[in-house]
Amino acid sequence: MNASLSEQTLQVETLFQGKVLTLERHRVRLPNGKTSQREVVKHPGAVALLALVGPEELLLVRQYRQAVGAALWEIPAGTLEAGEQPAACARRELAEETGYRAASLEEWARFYTAPGFCDEHMTLFLARGLTQDETGAQKDEDEFLELGAFSRSEVEGMVAGGEVRDAKTLLALALWRPHTTTARGER
Amino acid sequence: MNASLSEQTLQVETLFQGKVLTLERHRVRLPNGKTSQREVVKHPGAVALLALVGPEELLLVRQYRQAVGAALWEIPAGTLEAGEQPAACARRELAEETGYRAASLEEWARFYTAPGFCDEHMTLFLARGLTQDETGAQKDEDEFLELGAFSRSEVEGMVAGGEVRDAKTLLALALWRPHTTTARGER
Repeated sequence: MNASLSEQTLQVETLFQGKVLTLERHRVRLPNGKTSQREVVKHPGAVALLALVGPEELLLVRQYRQAVGAALWEIPAGTLEAGEQPAACARRELAEETGYRAASLEEWARFYTAPGFCDEHMTLFLARGLTQDETGAQKDEDEFLELGAFSRSEVEGMVAGGEVRDAKTLLALALWRPHTTTARGER
Repeated sequence: MNASLSEQTLQVETLFQGKVLTLERHRVRLPNGKTSQREVVKHPGAVALLALVGPEELLLVRQYRQAVGAALWEIPAGTLEAGEQPAACARRELAEETGYRAASLEEWARFYTAPGFCDEHMTLFLARGLTQDETGAQKDEDEFLELGAFSRSEVEGMVAGGEVRDAKTLLALALWRPHTTTARGER
């Protein structure tokens, strides 16, 4: 790291400890020797899946997002449980939200969702070879989801219409090129 | 919207009001009639720019991100000021962070960065026809940035090496196809 850019953490104050999020205020020393404050949201981390049903359709789930006041169609995703590895979380979330199992799970991208203020780190997987669980989706009692399988052109229409509008889903779509399911010899 | 997915907001409690972020706790009524709580981070909104210097290089800025404890290379970006329109914010941030002006600014994507808990909405622009301002970058006194111009293959190496690892930059790269600067007749 370029030492001249680094901030030195002087003090961390926990302002709020919630069910999922923790809010902290960090006092830092800037490269010029001054001190400043940063508001930091701590998050357990998350996963998301581009889950292909056949070579030409992907699974989306629709859920109400209270933070933005709307129901959005998104790729399946979820938050890491304590000590849970991303691949295990991805398989769990896929089963819970969609009722599918994947024969193969390939790590596709790893990224911070909003590093300006939050440490949420997300792992995006490509899930292929999907088969439906006999028991169906294992949603929590208080989780309300709609499941659908859509072609690329259908999803592009949903982007244009504002039904799909979150970063992880747009990234998965942009990475999902025609060669994804053929260049590596599958199907 | 599918009415069966909607949550009804019963009460909003402000837990923390910071310089940039506000943390709220929402009490909601679920579709099954039960009540639950949601932790919500309110954010003013933001912009980001895929700024092309010539057809084959893009601008990246490196800054220390206290939230993740590392210096990251990212596309230029910033937070909306009160009442500021995204395009005006994009021009301001481009000038402040890089010292460049753009002849053309094209809206490329709009998305929520983390709708599971935060209302941050980001507009991604494609900026072309860049010229350097005589005065150079107009950084705040307490803002520390490194600026660079990189080819696609250089940036792909930075992704592989973990120097580039935020969602907006990965999305901009994935959308930046070879035809971006040629199919529309520029250059």
